[in-house]
Amino acid sequence: MYITSLCYVERDGNYLMLHRVKKEKDRNRDKWIGIGGSFQEDESPEDCVRREAMEETGLTLVTPVLRAIVTFVVEDGIGEQMFLFTCDDFTGTLTDCDEGQLEWIPKEDLYGLELWEGDRIFLEKIAAPCPFFTLKLIYDRDGHLLFAEENGTRVIIDRRTQA
Amino acid sequence: MYITSLCYVERDGNYLMLHRVKKEKDRNRDKWIGIGGSFQEDESPEDCVRREAMEETGLTLVTPVLRAIVTFVVEDGIGEQMFLFTCDDFTGTLTDCDEGQLEWIPKEDLYGLELWEGDRIFLEKIAAPCPFFTLKLIYDRDGHLLFAEENGTRVIIDRRTQA
Repeated sequence: MYITSLCYVERDGNYLMLHRVKKEKDRNRDKWIGIGGSFQEDESPEDCVRREAMEETGLTLVTPVLRAIVTFVVEDGIGEQMFLFTCDDFTGTLTDCDEGQLEWIPKEDLYGLELWEGDRIFLEKIAAPCPFFTLKLIYDRDGHLLFAEENGTRVIIDRRTQA
Repeated sequence: MYITSLCYVERDGNYLMLHRVKKEKDRNRDKWIGIGGSFQEDESPEDCVRREAMEETGLTLVTPVLRAIVTFVVEDGIGEQMFLFTCDDFTGTLTDCDEGQLEWIPKEDLYGLELWEGDRIFLEKIAAPCPFFTLKLIYDRDGHLLFAEENGTRVIIDRRTQA
C-alpha cells in the first residue's frame, strides 16, 4: 500500500496548484493537483509534506494542518493512504518544479481545471474550515470514480454495478 | 512502511484491552494494547479497524472515531503509520482472541499495566475529548522511547544523543 502526502498551500485566497505536464509517464498527467509525494521510512505526515514542499516548491511549510485522510483504491490494484494538508503559513521563494508547472489559482477557479473527480469532493470540503474527515475513493482502471464514502459511514457516490 | 489500525473500545468507563500473552514471537509480548492490525489493500482506516475488531473480539464497531495518527520509528528500522480509533458504539458478543487475553479495564487503572511508554502519551490524550492530533514516536531497538512530537511541531520528549 502506498503512503503519500498532499498539500494545498494557500495565499490570499489562492491555492498553489501543480499542473502535471512535465513527465511523460505520470498517472496524474495533465491533471492539476497540490504538492506532495511518498513517505520515507522515518517520516511522520508533517515530515513528509514539509520535505516534499521544499523539494517541489522551495517553500518551507511552517504549520501544515492535517485536514483529512483519503484512501484511494483502484479496482484490483494497490491501495493508497493519502494525508491531506492545507498550509497558509510558509516562508521562502517559489522555485521551479521538475514534475509540472506551479501556479497560484483562485480557489473559486479550481473547478474549471482538469481535476480528478474525487479531488473535487475534498477540495470543496477543505475550502472552508471543517472538522477532520476521512474519505474513501474507489476508481475503475480508466480513472472513473465508482464510490465515495465519508468517515467510513456516509456514502456520497456509489456507481458500482452489483455482482 | 507498515500501516495499521488500533482501537480502544469503550464501555462504561472501561477500555477493552488485549494482554498479548498468547504468541511467543510478538513484538508486543506481555504488553497491554488495544485491538487492531494491518491494512489490506482495499481498506480505508474504518474498514480495517472494523474487520480487525470483528476478527479479534467478535464485536461490530458501529461508529469508530479516528482520534489520531501515530507514527512509530524504530532506529534504522521500518516505520509504521498507525490510525488510532476509539469506539463506544458497538454490537455483538465478546469472543476469545488468538493474540491474547481480552479484558475490560477501568480507564484510570490503565497506567498500572505494562504499556509502551509512547502509548501512555496518547492514552492520556484520548481519555477525554480532544481535537484530532498526530504523534511521532521514535524508539531505540530495546524499546526505549527516545523522542515524541505532537502535530509535527510540539516536542514532548527528546532523549536522543547529539551526534
